[in-house]
Amino acid sequence: MKVLGIDPGLATMGWGVVEARGSQVALLEAGALITTPEETMPQRLFHLYSGMKQLLARFQPDEIAFEELFFAKNITTGIAVGHARGVTLCACAEYGCPLYEYTPMQIKQSITGYGKADKHQMQHMVKLLLRLDDIIRPDDAADAVAAALTHVQAGRMKEQFVMK
Amino acid sequence: MKVLGIDPGLATMGWGVVEARGSQVALLEAGALITTPEETMPQRLFHLYSGMKQLLARFQPDEIAFEELFFAKNITTGIAVGHARGVTLCACAEYGCPLYEYTPMQIKQSITGYGKADKHQMQHMVKLLLRLDDIIRPDDAADAVAAALTHVQAGRMKEQFVMK
Repeated sequence: MKVLGIDPGLATMGWGVVEARGSQVALLEAGALITTPEETMPQRLFHLYSGMKQLLARFQPDEIAFEELFFAKNITTGIAVGHARGVTLCACAEYGCPLYEYTPMQIKQSITGYGKADKHQMQHMVKLLLRLDDIIRPDDAADAVAAALTHVQAGRMKEQFVMK
Repeated sequence: MKVLGIDPGLATMGWGVVEARGSQVALLEAGALITTPEETMPQRLFHLYSGMKQLLARFQPDEIAFEELFFAKNITTGIAVGHARGVTLCACAEYGCPLYEYTPMQIKQSITGYGKADKHQMQHMVKLLLRLDDIIRPDDAADAVAAALTHVQAGRMKEQFVMK
């Protein structure tokens, strides 16, 4: 089973694909879609939408795991992330596989056993769980991979995380 | 010149197309794209995105005027509207014509001469300006038409309302 993990953002949309076979999980690839303030907001959104469609066509995931929207900073950031998340959800609905979402705390709990783990711990555990030589860059790509891993680990429990 | 006006929303996305010829403006058509809570959020967004693409292909507007996102109620409503607005902007960027946006106050000022006009006044003036027999239903469609009319009235001033 191939799982695409997504950490939505307007400037940086992290993504990562893992493949689970029995008790083994391997990283296929991870990266980030980048948009810049030189583009207008509509252009940035279409850029992300097109990028998502390309990723979906290329990796053909069986299931997709989102990190849930979390308003860390302020309402302006929240609107921008909401816009970016909207076009990503749209591309995924068009693709047609089941979508799930996990809160940052659920992801941290699942990966490190501690819901308030910091970025360093998360990076370390993702590297360890996937038997990588180095940590995943950028951070948003690592966060996306962590969401995908959380989904694999959720196993039979995952139905409670289906996106409404 | 054909102008598509849009009042973005998740449950009801108002739209209206007006055609300006010299000093005359006529309503071509107005309506609303409707989504329901029986659909999942991703399905609703794809539904709006597809509907927008159909409207754009059908009317082929020269310019598009948005009512700017306005957080009247609460953050949850704001996120939902942000999602819906995101996919609408994405469809418009894909279509490729210039996009403009106006605040609710600018629209009210332009249509009624009073920035705090109520729905009743707005409906009345839109009907009058377009020489209609009846007011436009639903309200969101009337709001979208008002955005399009505001854009036509902005004339040479409109460049300051280009969406960034």
